[in-house]
Amino acid sequence: MSGAAEVLREEILSQPDAWRTLPGRSEEVAEVARALSGLGSPLVRIAAHGTSDHAGIYATYLLRALCGWTVVRDSMSLPLYYGVRAAAPGELAIGISQSGETPDVVAWLARAREGGATTLAITNGDGSSLARGADHVLPLGVGPERSIAATKTYTGTLGVIALLAGHLAGRGAEMAHALAGAADFAESALPALAAEADAVAHAVAESGRMYLVARGIELATVNEVALKLTEISYLGAKAMSATSMAHGPVAALDATVPLWAIASPDATLPAVQEAVRRAREAGAPVIASGPAAGDLAGAAWSLPTPLPDEPLLAPLLSVLPGQLFAWSLARAKGIDPGTPRHLRKVTSAA
Amino acid sequence: MSGAAEVLREEILSQPDAWRTLPGRSEEVAEVARALSGLGSPLVRIAAHGTSDHAGIYATYLLRALCGWTVVRDSMSLPLYYGVRAAAPGELAIGISQSGETPDVVAWLARAREGGATTLAITNGDGSSLARGADHVLPLGVGPERSIAATKTYTGTLGVIALLAGHLAGRGAEMAHALAGAADFAESALPALAAEADAVAHAVAESGRMYLVARGIELATVNEVALKLTEISYLGAKAMSATSMAHGPVAALDATVPLWAIASPDATLPAVQEAVRRAREAGAPVIASGPAAGDLAGAAWSLPTPLPDEPLLAPLLSVLPGQLFAWSLARAKGIDPGTPRHLRKVTSAA
Repeated sequence: MSGAAEVLREEILSQPDAWRTLPGRSEEVAEVARALSGLGSPLVRIAAHGTSDHAGIYATYLLRALCGWTVVRDSMSLPLYYGVRAAAPGELAIGISQSGETPDVVAWLARAREGGATTLAITNGDGSSLARGADHVLPLGVGPERSIAATKTYTGTLGVIALLAGHLAGRGAEMAHALAGAADFAESALPALAAEADAVAHAVAESGRMYLVARGIELATVNEVALKLTEISYLGAKAMSATSMAHGPVAALDATVPLWAIASPDATLPAVQEAVRRAREAGAPVIASGPAAGDLAGAAWSLPTPLPDEPLLAPLLSVLPGQLFAWSLARAKGIDPGTPRHLRKVTSAA
Repeated sequence: MSGAAEVLREEILSQPDAWRTLPGRSEEVAEVARALSGLGSPLVRIAAHGTSDHAGIYATYLLRALCGWTVVRDSMSLPLYYGVRAAAPGELAIGISQSGETPDVVAWLARAREGGATTLAITNGDGSSLARGADHVLPLGVGPERSIAATKTYTGTLGVIALLAGHLAGRGAEMAHALAGAADFAESALPALAAEADAVAHAVAESGRMYLVARGIELATVNEVALKLTEISYLGAKAMSATSMAHGPVAALDATVPLWAIASPDATLPAVQEAVRRAREAGAPVIASGPAAGDLAGAAWSLPTPLPDEPLLAPLLSVLPGQLFAWSLARAKGIDPGTPRHLRKVTSAA
């Protein structure tokens, strides 16, 4: 195993420890929440790319479900290239970037601030351009991420968002406690998940494509797992809403194209079950995951994850099998998951 | 050629005629615009799946660029499954569905209306459930779409959205005129585009995957072309922002995975040029399309489209090579593009 592959694996497995730092930072997050609560119930605009954008999907659910705040994953190109005002006074603009140096996210947040919006940076880059240009900063505090593929910064971002939403909803202490509990659940589950994900990876190593579906809050997870599979194991992986699958993509499924389905034990379950039924009709093998994996009939493999005390924290756990699977799939295909082709850590594309 | 394949091809080629009906319906659209302008500058929520959701991407650009209205492509699951309020008084909720019978779009619009929002249905289904449940209706008026794959209803939706945004911005007559001009441009371009798209399809028929990039308004187009390639020709096709490509997916590119890039002659061009440069470094063959296709250096193939007098209408034209290419690619792979597997016209999944 290459050193870089080993580092990536260690970072994946270190995530519960990273989450455990969050309860100790609860007062720091509460302070930002108090400042933001002066906005009333603001329109929230979020700008981010890649993994950070998937954390933005999570934020759309958390802030709306817990606080009733509407979140737009906003177009950066409208203000940066089309001359449209980025944001208005009374709105909250959030830039998410692990490095804090993604050029257009930095530029977008600056425009939002010029427009009079309150700005918040969520970043692992203390002292980064993004942090320096924001009214408020929530550092991830997960320590340096050495791998090119983001893992602990992803779940670290989810954790910070959950804690912020919890405090905004007056449930900060409860959320901090639930985060610690989620870390314990994850630590217990990881060894078996790693072994099972490895077995599934070897079973499907010949597949060049995969679809991933969920409905509701786990949409963030399937998008993030698809990206890990793309960047680490060079798979043609595409995530979508379980319901959207019937609007076209189901035609592309067959026995060579597995479906990764994440199921939650809530009102979204029937939509995921229906997608799995359609995929099975099309002959696609199904990998069932998430806290309600056991409720997906006909799955060839199951990678269930624990349901934390606060169900809104489930995505922190449900991404773990996907990260492990991407790592194992790369190795099964003879790819070094620690050194993806053509990539660098801080993306500075135009 | 099967009858169904022939019908799909006829529907693709009939699109200019469908757009030509829009100027004659300008007063009908203006009436809806007058009613909506009483909302001031509302938050707009849009719910849709698949092709209609891609038209929703277009709407986020048109309504913001022309009217300054912020658009959320909203989560249907939050109100339908998580008990969150769908919308509030003073907001505009838009449901887009070609059939007007997509169950969760119909249910979501009903919730938005119960919440006090003003509701608008954009649909080809006159008298559909969606139309009956909305305060205002904009019919597509493109005639029945017989194929399973949506083509003329997609560009028909774009046209109605453009005309509505034009009227809201006090530029309705100008937009109606530009739509007629776009139809003329398209009709002139279609025969050559069909031949060129067919040649490219045969050249890349062995590829199982493809990435598609754009930045700004053409994001709608790459998402729609990716869906056509998925549902008609069973390709593993994934669309993304040109800038997001550097955040991971570039690792999955190699000589067997073409990149379809849509370029516009505006401030977004450098971002697309940079993505093409990265793809070329990775060895991926590039298909350049859009009105600035000629500005993408190193492309293996070029499928340029005319720039209409109103540049915001470019997506009506830039989707045409993708529809034609998907049709040709299916036939090159021995698939009947008129009868995709596992699909039905009105999606009624849970």
